[in-house]
Amino acid sequence: MKKTMKIDRAEVLNVGSELLYDRVNTDINIITGLLYARGIKVSRSVTVADNKEEIIAAARESLARSSLLIVTGGLGPTFDDLTREAIAELLDEKLVFSQSIWREIKARFKKRGISLPEANKKQAYVLERAVVLKNTVGTAPGQAVEKGGKVIVILPGPPDELRPMLQTYLPVLTKGITRQGKVYRFGIVGLSESFVEEKIKKILPKFNFDFTILASPSLIEIIAVSDLNCGKEIAKLDEKFRELFTVNYLGIDPPTLPAFIKNILCEKNLKLALAESCTGGFASKLITDIPGSSACFQGSFVTYSNVLKKRILKVPRSVLKKNGAVSKEVALFMARGAIKEGKADVSISFTGIAGPSGGTSDKPVGTVWIGIGLPYNRGYARKFFFPGTRDRIRQRSVYQGFNLLRQSLLTYEKWGKKTK
Amino acid sequence: MKKTMKIDRAEVLNVGSELLYDRVNTDINIITGLLYARGIKVSRSVTVADNKEEIIAAARESLARSSLLIVTGGLGPTFDDLTREAIAELLDEKLVFSQSIWREIKARFKKRGISLPEANKKQAYVLERAVVLKNTVGTAPGQAVEKGGKVIVILPGPPDELRPMLQTYLPVLTKGITRQGKVYRFGIVGLSESFVEEKIKKILPKFNFDFTILASPSLIEIIAVSDLNCGKEIAKLDEKFRELFTVNYLGIDPPTLPAFIKNILCEKNLKLALAESCTGGFASKLITDIPGSSACFQGSFVTYSNVLKKRILKVPRSVLKKNGAVSKEVALFMARGAIKEGKADVSISFTGIAGPSGGTSDKPVGTVWIGIGLPYNRGYARKFFFPGTRDRIRQRSVYQGFNLLRQSLLTYEKWGKKTK
Repeated sequence: MKKTMKIDRAEVLNVGSELLYDRVNTDINIITGLLYARGIKVSRSVTVADNKEEIIAAARESLARSSLLIVTGGLGPTFDDLTREAIAELLDEKLVFSQSIWREIKARFKKRGISLPEANKKQAYVLERAVVLKNTVGTAPGQAVEKGGKVIVILPGPPDELRPMLQTYLPVLTKGITRQGKVYRFGIVGLSESFVEEKIKKILPKFNFDFTILASPSLIEIIAVSDLNCGKEIAKLDEKFRELFTVNYLGIDPPTLPAFIKNILCEKNLKLALAESCTGGFASKLITDIPGSSACFQGSFVTYSNVLKKRILKVPRSVLKKNGAVSKEVALFMARGAIKEGKADVSISFTGIAGPSGGTSDKPVGTVWIGIGLPYNRGYARKFFFPGTRDRIRQRSVYQGFNLLRQSLLTYEKWGKKTK
Repeated sequence: MKKTMKIDRAEVLNVGSELLYDRVNTDINIITGLLYARGIKVSRSVTVADNKEEIIAAARESLARSSLLIVTGGLGPTFDDLTREAIAELLDEKLVFSQSIWREIKARFKKRGISLPEANKKQAYVLERAVVLKNTVGTAPGQAVEKGGKVIVILPGPPDELRPMLQTYLPVLTKGITRQGKVYRFGIVGLSESFVEEKIKKILPKFNFDFTILASPSLIEIIAVSDLNCGKEIAKLDEKFRELFTVNYLGIDPPTLPAFIKNILCEKNLKLALAESCTGGFASKLITDIPGSSACFQGSFVTYSNVLKKRILKVPRSVLKKNGAVSKEVALFMARGAIKEGKADVSISFTGIAGPSGGTSDKPVGTVWIGIGLPYNRGYARKFFFPGTRDRIRQRSVYQGFNLLRQSLLTYEKWGKKTK
């Protein structure tokens, strides 16, 4: 690689027949996100099947337009993995066998205690002039090569291999390039997109940024892209958003809600337990996605059946019978049960109708009660109605529950002394 | 549209700056899935930002290569929605204002009780020669136009608008076209991708299909695309795979593993409970993703902390102390505890080190014990080592557990009479 170069245009080429069938491509978002953070915008992304001629043609066209091309996928050990060969042919480079890569592959298989098929030898071939990019998660290493002032980076397709590799190597690969912009993310939770849009409509034009609003069940993000490094303007915007959205504003470049909760629990030395019915372990899964969550997470009681709500969480039979499982009373009993049986300080409970069937006119599909359990036997429950699919209802329930707990934790000092 | 035409190549162009940032593109999978089902393969998909020149250039290139181009996105009412204008310019077609579309947009806003911004007028413009494709979910209609023997279909970006429109219009738009193939999926679990390839390498060339292998933590799929409708050949292939992969072979167009388990449990009238440590509710989340899982799923004990393993699942303190939480003994106790406390017939337990920290030389990150609990106090536990990230380790654990239970359930008849 040269010491400095100008990336005036970047493109991404994703290789994989599955991406042109039923596999969702998240690589592109990982790549554009990481490039964005370094001030590089991706102008076009192209996806092709595992077909050598198609890979060569698409890569040739992208390179004619761009100075940086990131190619992903097609580095596996099987016959339909053709990226290596295609790029070698396009660049007129030789593929050479690397003893050191082969040794690493052998060591990886040995550690897993499985026999190494001959086919994997393919993964030890690299372009003669390439810089090898280490893959600590999978077997296929990445490669970077420069030709005619253009940089081609080849990376494996699996997102959990690609992400750490890009994070490690991007700073080196893009060292000294001219930055095209800077990106700031402002996070808001618990409000609707149209409500947020209405509130900021008059404010945004006063600021010299490109704005985008992105809404997902977990978060609304206002993205501001600027050509300059204008910290003062950003601070002003930050202040404005805090004023407008108060407790629902998460700040600049906020962590995810589960990470936020984990951090605040650890900081305040509190333990969390969950009681999940309709969310079926989803909330627990998101909390335990975070490394180190064991420090503040006791566990979750996924009491999907009523028999477990009674048996494990001690929800009285009479309460279930009188109010039904989807009710304020059951949500409160579940939240209390989670604290008591889970030896925790705080809890969230979820009970609702995720559908597609099971709804009634009184409690239609999408009705969800969320309970929050707090120390000193305090707590509360709130009813929500979430429209949409089963997936969407479960997702919104989980994030709404996280947001309620988050708001309660923000006022933790007012609860009085911790008893435990 | 002409009565019959040959689609010898199809491409997709997705327009939207957000797709080149952090919005995941699911349109492409919806489109390729629906086209695939009609025997049309998508050879390339291209994503560009909301930039008129870029849209024109990409569409021109795609049309030069293909006879069918589906363009999505950029049909909204705001300044950065430019697809209509770009395609009109490229095809040298006039955009004309449609009174009937405008009436429909007005009616839609009235129904929702919100005022209609002038900007929406933009959405009533269509290419002069276009066939208008009705949108019953959102405001922007689609369009289809033929030029020089090529068909261009323009559709709105939101997946829940695009999907029903394509489902409605695709049969009409592709009527009389020459089918390019039929797609068959064969599923295999519990084996490595390279092992599977090694096994099938010599068999595949004997069959007249295009083959692709797709590997994910949940499943290895062999996709066969054929030019013909050759049921006999498919039956032969099916038989061959069953012979090669025996209990690991899932059959043609198999359901997902959690769905498979749900079906077999319901069929055999068995109840499942889970005991999750390192998987933290992930297995439970996947089971409850399936509508109707409550019929056979009691719940999950996410005993993330040791205190809950003892308290809830009755894992003896001495066993935990002697063997550590990640051990055969604890996996077995957890599996038994899940059956007993969860009032279930069968169970899966997970205890392992998902990392990134917590590993030792004896039990490195990736060490996972999986227990299977069966009626008559039977059961077993197996040790696995999964390399990779925390995510990957958790995912592989869950699917390996599902596969073990699946294999046990397949021999259920041999267990003897059910006691419950």
